[in-house]
Amino acid sequence: MTDSEPARIVEEARRVIDEIDLAILVLLNRRAEQVRRIGTAKRVLGEPVYQPDREERIFDRVVGANTGPLEDAALRRLFERILDESRRLERMS
Amino acid sequence: MTDSEPARIVEEARRVIDEIDLAILVLLNRRAEQVRRIGTAKRVLGEPVYQPDREERIFDRVVGANTGPLEDAALRRLFERILDESRRLERMS
Repeated sequence: MTDSEPARIVEEARRVIDEIDLAILVLLNRRAEQVRRIGTAKRVLGEPVYQPDREERIFDRVVGANTGPLEDAALRRLFERILDESRRLERMS
Repeated sequence: MTDSEPARIVEEARRVIDEIDLAILVLLNRRAEQVRRIGTAKRVLGEPVYQPDREERIFDRVVGANTGPLEDAALRRLFERILDESRRLERMS
């Protein structure tokens, strides 16, 4: 079943992706820890969870550092989801 | 402006988040490279881009390794976005 060259490529690439996904998971959770710290601190400060200027700076920073192959628009959509979840988590902090 | 303890926490946590975001960016692009390899190989094999079984295995794997503070449902939503973008990229490969 996996004896052809393209089948081997799929299998190997999936193995690499599986490793990358676990590394992404670790980073997302580390990020979430910081988001919770921010949520608690902002409550003390009376600052709002949603701060559009900060979110724009995050987008600009990652898009500015993007080398591809992900397109900037795709990257922006991915970080929109990350920031959505961050806001949700911050509200629960 | 940032002379209170909570303000310092926000500032420091944002600095950590900025570093994490660049690391996530690198991983997302590495992942995208593998997705493109898979896209090309699948075309040769005549396999479809959308393979729900493989996607379910990816969800199960990351949710199974999740230690929080991200909730499983949040993690799933994040990986849904990653897989959406992967499908898009695979189609362009």
